[in-house]
Amino acid sequence: MDSDPSDDKKSASSPRGFAALDDAPFPDFAPGSVWLVGAGPGAPGLLTLLGYHALCQADVIVYDALVRKGILAWAHSACEIEFAGKRGGRPSAKQQDISLRLVELAQENKRVLRLKGGDPLTFGRGGEECQALARAKIPFRIVPGITAGAGALAYAGIPTTHRDTNQSVLFLTGHDASGDVPSGVDWEKVTTASPVIVMYMAVRKLPEIAQTMLGHGRAGAEPVAVISNASLPQQSVYTTTLASAADNPDIAKLPTPALVVIGKVVDFHATLDWYVQALRENPIG
Amino acid sequence: MDSDPSDDKKSASSPRGFAALDDAPFPDFAPGSVWLVGAGPGAPGLLTLLGYHALCQADVIVYDALVRKGILAWAHSACEIEFAGKRGGRPSAKQQDISLRLVELAQENKRVLRLKGGDPLTFGRGGEECQALARAKIPFRIVPGITAGAGALAYAGIPTTHRDTNQSVLFLTGHDASGDVPSGVDWEKVTTASPVIVMYMAVRKLPEIAQTMLGHGRAGAEPVAVISNASLPQQSVYTTTLASAADNPDIAKLPTPALVVIGKVVDFHATLDWYVQALRENPIG
Repeated sequence: MDSDPSDDKKSASSPRGFAALDDAPFPDFAPGSVWLVGAGPGAPGLLTLLGYHALCQADVIVYDALVRKGILAWAHSACEIEFAGKRGGRPSAKQQDISLRLVELAQENKRVLRLKGGDPLTFGRGGEECQALARAKIPFRIVPGITAGAGALAYAGIPTTHRDTNQSVLFLTGHDASGDVPSGVDWEKVTTASPVIVMYMAVRKLPEIAQTMLGHGRAGAEPVAVISNASLPQQSVYTTTLASAADNPDIAKLPTPALVVIGKVVDFHATLDWYVQALRENPIG
Repeated sequence: MDSDPSDDKKSASSPRGFAALDDAPFPDFAPGSVWLVGAGPGAPGLLTLLGYHALCQADVIVYDALVRKGILAWAHSACEIEFAGKRGGRPSAKQQDISLRLVELAQENKRVLRLKGGDPLTFGRGGEECQALARAKIPFRIVPGITAGAGALAYAGIPTTHRDTNQSVLFLTGHDASGDVPSGVDWEKVTTASPVIVMYMAVRKLPEIAQTMLGHGRAGAEPVAVISNASLPQQSVYTTTLASAADNPDIAKLPTPALVVIGKVVDFHATLDWYVQALRENPIG
């Protein structure tokens, strides 16, 4: 092994560090505009640099239930913070009301940060908010975030794709606007189109969905993982099979928010589970 | 409109800013460990906070062709930087050699940053590198990144999902390890399983893939977008239809890296295209 002189240099004052970014030419967050920012799956450290820049500049933040307190704590102390959360089964703000509120705040010449869990345009209804802003001629920017479908899998040691198992992955939502299993999904085709399926908001309906998939020819032995509270200290990963998930009503009671993964990539969790207990105590990620 | 006193406070010295993060309890990047970090689709501002932290701490960076210079420029001045790129059609390092190199560098007690474009576990072969590290008992961490499938669409004003169009999205790769259209994909099922299909590394084979999909019943009028150099100053978005893509050999010559999107969400590009020329001059995103 080399005796590496670089071991010392990092413990002293770093010539770089985050402070260097305060001089970087980040794009201007103009008053009267809206930035839709994805906060990622949970851990504050998974916010993007552009997202953090927006947090520092915003006059008002309109955030969702899935955005963690650790991220909001980074906002400017004078920033107004409004909750516009939605969560399965609970009373919630209507999408139209949220869009109108964003327009209203921008028309007050504020820098409006719309902060959403995951990625704003992936099962996040950010597209509808952008449409409302475009109609009202409010300038906006989209700052993508790490969608739970990628972030949760990474923190569970489950590759979204792996050369030995899959050349495609299908993401779908497990409930529609009314909370039911979505009727717009062609379950027969979806069930066997891709070796790996990642489902958002599907835990409450998982026994029903698993039964549907068994009926359409997916193997009962197919591995299934439910990743709850991904990238957070209370993360848990529950593994089972499709047949067991169909037979087990208790699986619908696993903690949410949760991602469901179906496919052989789940087996990698056993050897690639790097997010061990000692790491989970860290509040950043 | 309110006269908003908050307009002034931001132009003065911000009480927050990036410098505040130098005191945040980011997880320790231990010598002898490897962090696999996703750099996102291109724009430096789409790197995560954890990814930037890793850049500041790393002794050596092993990076891919898709990682942009603007991100590498943030590395520590004494950091060693090694290229391990792979790119369709060009000679490239073998995956096994890259994995062995990561093990070797970690065994030299270095902080090894493996920096990959997009997300390391989504069509990035990061899973194979994790397996090699686990076998060699090298501690590792995965820092997910924004996969091109989400980031490119966001910068083209194309929602990955939209309530009016799709409750699922299918991601697939357009070429396998040998550069051919992947044989492991069930094209008949893939073609019609989901209203939206996002394809990675598919431009060179797009006429062939489009013909295959037409043959399996996807409508010729289906909108198609090719997003080249997403989130970078030279970004371009080319829109067409599936029938035209099948008939047009020139489409295979569009600039790469590129993402292909098939489905009605492409139509939103016309009204939600926020990444206008004036914004593209910004080097951060």
